Amino acid sequence: MAGSSLKWASKPIGIHCDMGEAFGNWKMGDDEAIMPYIDACSIACGFHAGDPMVMYNTVKAAEKHNVRVGAHPSFLDLQGFGRREMVMDPVECEKMVIYQIGALKAFLDIDGLPLSHVSPHGALYGVMCKDKSICEAVCRASRFFKSDDGEPVPIIGAPNTIMETVCADMGIPFIQEIISDLEYDANGNCKIPRAHEPQDLGALQTRLSRALRTGEIECKETGGFVDLKLSAEPLSLCIHSDTPGATEVAAATREVVNEFNRELS
Amino acid sequence: MAGSSLKWASKPIGIHCDMGEAFGNWKMGDDEAIMPYIDACSIACGFHAGDPMVMYNTVKAAEKHNVRVGAHPSFLDLQGFGRREMVMDPVECEKMVIYQIGALKAFLDIDGLPLSHVSPHGALYGVMCKDKSICEAVCRASRFFKSDDGEPVPIIGAPNTIMETVCADMGIPFIQEIISDLEYDANGNCKIPRAHEPQDLGALQTRLSRALRTGEIECKETGGFVDLKLSAEPLSLCIHSDTPGATEVAAATREVVNEFNRELS
Amino acid sequence: MAGSSLKWASKPIGIHCDMGEAFGNWKMGDDEAIMPYIDACSIACGFHAGDPMVMYNTVKAAEKHNVRVGAHPSFLDLQGFGRREMVMDPVECEKMVIYQIGALKAFLDIDGLPLSHVSPHGALYGVMCKDKSICEAVCRASRFFKSDDGEPVPIIGAPNTIMETVCADMGIPFIQEIISDLEYDANGNCKIPRAHEPQDLGALQTRLSRALRTGEIECKETGGFVDLKLSAEPLSLCIHSDTPGATEVAAATREVVNEFNRELS
Amino acid sequence: MAGSSLKWASKPIGIHCDMGEAFGNWKMGDDEAIMPYIDACSIACGFHAGDPMVMYNTVKAAEKHNVRVGAHPSFLDLQGFGRREMVMDPVECEKMVIYQIGALKAFLDIDGLPLSHVSPHGALYGVMCKDKSICEAVCRASRFFKSDDGEPVPIIGAPNTIMETVCADMGIPFIQEIISDLEYDANGNCKIPRAHEPQDLGALQTRLSRALRTGEIECKETGGFVDLKLSAEPLSLCIHSDTPGATEVAAATREVVNEFNRELS
Repeated sequence: MAGSSLKWASKPIGIHCDMGEAFGNWKMGDDEAIMPYIDACSIACGFHAGDPMVMYNTVKAAEKHNVRVGAHPSFLDLQGFGRREMVMDPVECEKMVIYQIGALKAFLDIDGLPLSHVSPHGALYGVMCKDKSICEAVCRASRFFKSDDGEPVPIIGAPNTIMETVCADMGIPFIQEIISDLEYDANGNCKIPRAHEPQDLGALQTRLSRALRTGEIECKETGGFVDLKLSAEPLSLCIHSDTPGATEVAAATREVVNEFNRELS
Repeated sequence: MAGSSLKWASKPIGIHCDMGEAFGNWKMGDDEAIMPYIDACSIACGFHAGDPMVMYNTVKAAEKHNVRVGAHPSFLDLQGFGRREMVMDPVECEKMVIYQIGALKAFLDIDGLPLSHVSPHGALYGVMCKDKSICEAVCRASRFFKSDDGEPVPIIGAPNTIMETVCADMGIPFIQEIISDLEYDANGNCKIPRAHEPQDLGALQTRLSRALRTGEIECKETGGFVDLKLSAEPLSLCIHSDTPGATEVAAATREVVNEFNRELS
Repeated sequence: MAGSSLKWASKPIGIHCDMGEAFGNWKMGDDEAIMPYIDACSIACGFHAGDPMVMYNTVKAAEKHNVRVGAHPSFLDLQGFGRREMVMDPVECEKMVIYQIGALKAFLDIDGLPLSHVSPHGALYGVMCKDKSICEAVCRASRFFKSDDGEPVPIIGAPNTIMETVCADMGIPFIQEIISDLEYDANGNCKIPRAHEPQDLGALQTRLSRALRTGEIECKETGGFVDLKLSAEPLSLCIHSDTPGATEVAAATREVVNEFNRELS
Repeated sequence: MAGSSLKWASKPIGIHCDMGEAFGNWKMGDDEAIMPYIDACSIACGFHAGDPMVMYNTVKAAEKHNVRVGAHPSFLDLQGFGRREMVMDPVECEKMVIYQIGALKAFLDIDGLPLSHVSPHGALYGVMCKDKSICEAVCRASRFFKSDDGEPVPIIGAPNTIMETVCADMGIPFIQEIISDLEYDANGNCKIPRAHEPQDLGALQTRLSRALRTGEIECKETGGFVDLKLSAEPLSLCIHSDTPGATEVAAATREVVNEFNRELS
């Protein structure tokens, strides 16, 4: 391993991808093509995307590719794809998340698969980063769901936010994520809205590779580097199935992660 | 026990009630008032009625009153309250039912309560009585969910229909129901639409009491009696929380059932 | 007329009521009973409440009672009854409001009735009072709909807010409303959540009667009076069909308004 | 013109296309690319597809390409894309269609565009062909909407069905459609589910060209020809924006129609 150049990651890193975001007759992303490159997927639970048939098919695809399955709950907002913030009562929010995780878990239980993690989606994720009562509500809901060892399933979220501290306070394992396929701005936030052109895969690999070793990520806009404020492990790289060239991004990310994990071992 | 007068019921009879059919700001039925009179409730799962908060509150009310909880899945049709038949692919229908039962089961799991049964709602129930492929789809979904003894949870349904034969073929316990609070027509079917006036409780008790002992129920229209074609046990009497005078109907039904069960023992 | 005691209202005052807030099988308020006491109703357009059948029936009831009909658009949020704030793109918000007004207007056109006004509902109303871009979006949508004289239909809203200034800037007639059936707090805002007990009708009449003549409303909490900051006319008193004792509140409000309007003439 | 070989079409023929079937974040078809090849489009109204923003954008695209706009109403079934039959009360169905046409019409009114026609979608279309009460309900709704000459806007539908006779009885102009981009079976019905491979455009042109001149269409399965039972004019060819190679199909259909219309003149 590269020794002194490594700042953050001392444990093998995974890749997870949001999936199952089709709805009825509408497609979204080529989940099957991406499966070979990832360790875990977060499956939409019907509130911002996904429906029972899509959820079933995505669980089956994950099982076939030996990919772990987590829940990807969101606000109830199909039209806005769960990307519009909603002001909700925290107690209602907690029940809303229980409902969604429960629905997904049924498909896992039937196939004897464990629930891997919970990864909140879109605006729910965003609100959790700034509203402690909503963050706690989602965490309370998630904490009811246990891994095989009886511990709560981990939550995947943004490093250095209240998501992380709330999880710590509530005894929930926390997986910090680095977004592989989105640009970061000078404040260390992902740029929304996303670019619509396919990415330069070489640049993406260089950026990620450096980030894993230094905890800093390049900001294309400024040309400088931004501290990701990673503070704990494990890490997981997040990719999205609906970005342009998603399969190629997945493959490129896989190469970076494989190389890093090899160095570690 | 009354001996020769008993035609059908040789086992204690229960009472179940459809519940949790509020939605958001809209109320439906006084579930709390009815709880003391019933053995089991079937809770709407969000597709024709119910939302995560309503489901949670109804589970809590059932727990408080020591009432067993089953799932009340339906077609996805909030506007039609699940009473409009839909033509669905059986495979999609199966997944749709898994989703709903799973969502409800999460609220039960959290409180350490078992899933008692599955009782299909409205038009889904109606289609199951005439379309074998949909009946089998719902039964396949239900069969994934087990009682504590490892057996599939029972399905509550209409006697002498393909619901009963499909359950038998698939090894699913079947609970025949007699509808306590609706009139039967001359063909032994419940009259839809329902009456909007409160019922004569004395007449209701006489009708039910006779039905439990003879397997025949009075048809008010004709003045005659209709064979309910009960063919197996156990039986359960169904009441609805949204009928006029629902709490009084529940209390009157309870009296009939208590008396019958006392005679049996 | 009382002369010097009158601070604000020099024109006849109307009463409007939010209506048509049932949905499918769920009821909300006794619209028919309230109709005789009001001048105008604002009918829900299917996004927070109401469905095509409810909209049709409510328009027919209004026509029968010679009550003017306006649109009551909202965020798309049946489960939250349109009371949960959503962060929306203003352009999408504009189209969302056009859609809803257009749907209601079809029922009016068919009966040859004019669209009376637009009265935004719940959280949309709330966001309009603090987010100018959303306020402008709703006003742009509303401005496309004209009265018989070719002028934009008026918007009913909160006095002394950006709703009023945006309407002024965009040439939209603005009707300031005083909420008849909710308590005001010491800041002049209506208290949410609402009380669940029926109101003291005598106290309500005294409070309203004074408010119409002085522009100040009693704050029960403090015992003092709050300036409503009414700044223009006309005024309309708002009642809700889903408050406890709504019909009696409507009748009591009617008496106050009738007396005031008689004095004026 | 070819004289004796012409069996049915003596008036210029149009092409219409179902459009605006995206929803929120989900795309469907490349409407913009198809616009140059068609005379009219039928825009989804939010019940099976489409949302206010999509409707607005599709109207704008149609206006830019000088394409007439009709409404494409359906059952309320986003998850099933309006392709699942629902059993509805006819009166509710009528109001459901009024709502949808009204919502679309608002976007047209704002731009000063007329409503061209009504073209029922998917399962609603299918039910209209076999259930007279639903067919009449949709026609009653449609008949409220007038063309510039004060006549009801035409309905586009299937030749030789009760859609045609009900329209005749109710004084509604009827436009018979031939489906350009779907295979017909030996009974003259379009094959559902659709093929997923792009079509042989030459074969498609030969098939259509013959159909316009003879009223018979080739059935690929049997190799024979099926009488389309066209019985009146005008005719319009229907294409779908979501079929594979939709733009090329549109262009190929345009060539056939242009040639036919040139011969006529």
